[in-house]
Amino acid sequence: MQVQEPVAPAVALPTSGADPTGEIDRARPADGPQILAIAAGAGVFTPEEVATVRELWEDYLRNGEASYAFRVYREGEKVLGFSCHGRHDLTERTYDLYWIATDPSARRRGVGRALLRRVEEEVRQAGGRLLVVETSGTPAYAPTRAFYRSCGYELEAVVHDFYHAGDDLVIFTKHLGE
Amino acid sequence: MQVQEPVAPAVALPTSGADPTGEIDRARPADGPQILAIAAGAGVFTPEEVATVRELWEDYLRNGEASYAFRVYREGEKVLGFSCHGRHDLTERTYDLYWIATDPSARRRGVGRALLRRVEEEVRQAGGRLLVVETSGTPAYAPTRAFYRSCGYELEAVVHDFYHAGDDLVIFTKHLGE
Repeated sequence: MQVQEPVAPAVALPTSGADPTGEIDRARPADGPQILAIAAGAGVFTPEEVATVRELWEDYLRNGEASYAFRVYREGEKVLGFSCHGRHDLTERTYDLYWIATDPSARRRGVGRALLRRVEEEVRQAGGRLLVVETSGTPAYAPTRAFYRSCGYELEAVVHDFYHAGDDLVIFTKHLGE
Repeated sequence: MQVQEPVAPAVALPTSGADPTGEIDRARPADGPQILAIAAGAGVFTPEEVATVRELWEDYLRNGEASYAFRVYREGEKVLGFSCHGRHDLTERTYDLYWIATDPSARRRGVGRALLRRVEEEVRQAGGRLLVVETSGTPAYAPTRAFYRSCGYELEAVVHDFYHAGDDLVIFTKHLGE
C-alpha cells in the first residue's frame, strides 16, 4: 500500500449501536488488514470489488475522509464490520454508501445495522439530505436487499443488466429529514 | 493545468457523422480551451459541473483514455462539440457517457448525434454491452432527454430528488448488440 501519511484521526465516536459490547469508530490506519479481510471474506464481493475497497482505503489513508469515510465496528482490537460513505459530487447534499460489510462470525448481531445507523447520523449532521445505496439484484444479494429494506430504505430504481447480463443495479434511497 | 505529457494521439478517426463538413477525432491537448468553453457556454452546466469536465480533461491529458475518452467534432481548427465516455468499474463491459455538449452556434446540425453515434461505435468495437447516460429530470434538460430518446435510448430508471430536491436523476440506457 502506498501509505504516505496516516491522516485518519483515531478518535472514538460515541456509540449508537444495537450491540452494547462494541463501539463504532473512525477507522484507524491499523484497521486496514482487518477491513480488507472482511471484504474478502464477505462471500459476495468479487476480487475486483475487494481491490476497489483497497483503493478507497488507500485514498482514505492518504487524503482523509473528504471523499471516502471509513467507519468500523470494533470490539476491543477486533473489527467486526466496516462501512464507507461519502458525498456524491455534483449533487446538493446527496451521499453514497459505498460499502458496508460484516465479518461472517459476527452476523445477526446488529453490527451492520449499527454501522448503517451511524452513517445516517453522521450524514444527517453534515447536512446530508439523501443517502443512496447501490447493490445487485442477484439472489446472492437478497439478504443485502432485505437488510436495506428493514433499515427503512426504499427501492428507488433498477437498471437492468447493469453489472452484467442478468445482474441488475438496484438503487435504494433514504431521505434524511431533520 | 498539470499537464505532464500529451498522451492523446492526434489521429483522425473515420467520420460517421451526419454532417459531412466536419470530422470526429480523438481530442488533442490543444483542444482543451475549446472543450472547456463549450462546456461553460452550453447553458445548462453549473460551474461545479464545468470544473468536473476540467478535472476529467486533465486526467485524460495525464493518463490517456483509460478512464475518460474525449472525442471532438471538428471543422478545420474549430471544435463544435465534444463527448467523454469510459468503462464503468466493477461491471462487465458497461460504459458511461459522462459528457456530451455542442457549441450553441452549431446546434441542430447533427453534431451531438454524430458524436454519440461515434461513441456507440467505439464502445461496441471495444466489446461494450451497455451504454448508460445519466441526466437531469428538470425542464432545462428536456431537450437533452428528447435527444437521447431520438437516438434510441430508453428511459431506464429515475432517482427522485437526487441532484437536489425537485431535481431527479434520470438514467437512459442503450444495449449495444452485435
